[in-house]
Amino acid sequence: MKPLKVRSGCPLSSVLDIIGDKWSLLIVRDILMNGKNTYNEFLRSKERIATNVLADRLSLLETTGILAREEHPESKAKIFYRLTDKGIDLLPVLVELILWSNTHLPIDEAARSYGEALKRNKEAMIRQLMAAARKQ
Amino acid sequence: MKPLKVRSGCPLSSVLDIIGDKWSLLIVRDILMNGKNTYNEFLRSKERIATNVLADRLSLLETTGILAREEHPESKAKIFYRLTDKGIDLLPVLVELILWSNTHLPIDEAARSYGEALKRNKEAMIRQLMAAARKQ
Repeated sequence: MKPLKVRSGCPLSSVLDIIGDKWSLLIVRDILMNGKNTYNEFLRSKERIATNVLADRLSLLETTGILAREEHPESKAKIFYRLTDKGIDLLPVLVELILWSNTHLPIDEAARSYGEALKRNKEAMIRQLMAAARKQ
Repeated sequence: MKPLKVRSGCPLSSVLDIIGDKWSLLIVRDILMNGKNTYNEFLRSKERIATNVLADRLSLLETTGILAREEHPESKAKIFYRLTDKGIDLLPVLVELILWSNTHLPIDEAARSYGEALKRNKEAMIRQLMAAARKQ
């Protein structure tokens, strides 16, 4: 893996050095919101991430302390990816991105009604999702 | 410019199709938070964006309705880039990214104290920055 290039001391720039791409936050989404925790589960998400991109992103997210690798409770052949507290703390970012999409982009009807619920109960839903992620 | 590829109906995936890269949100930051509005001003930011990347990102942000191009009030030779309401609505995303960095990454001291202020007065500072951006 290429070493992480830090472009400036700006906090926005620094977080984008880590998760500023089209895929990393989808892996965080899959763990936080879709109950996925393994390589094959991430691979089956509907955006169809390529295997080399997935491996690269998992490695970067682990190196930067957002993901932790553990032995899968059901199979020694699988790795179980868990979000660290640092990773779980990305949830408010995900929520604001989803709310922006809900207002400004054409999206699925099911997604839209989830977004509406999220808008009405933002703080409570963030707390609930974070608590669930900490129990994984 | 390549046409925008939409990977799924997921709202998170859809917004990342537009701003899921290391540079787009830095341009939004420069307009919203640093009072920059021209190609040369963006180019001079400390992350040192490459000219071809900047041109590509400006074009994508304009096509997707986040930026609007206008004649510069002081020079006909320059383009003035203004955020649309859709662009200004990205501010809460920027704020959550900055707050995450403030907690989890090594960043400039000046940036850190700005982040602490942002944490204490989040809603008020978002309102203030949005109002200022609408007046541009």
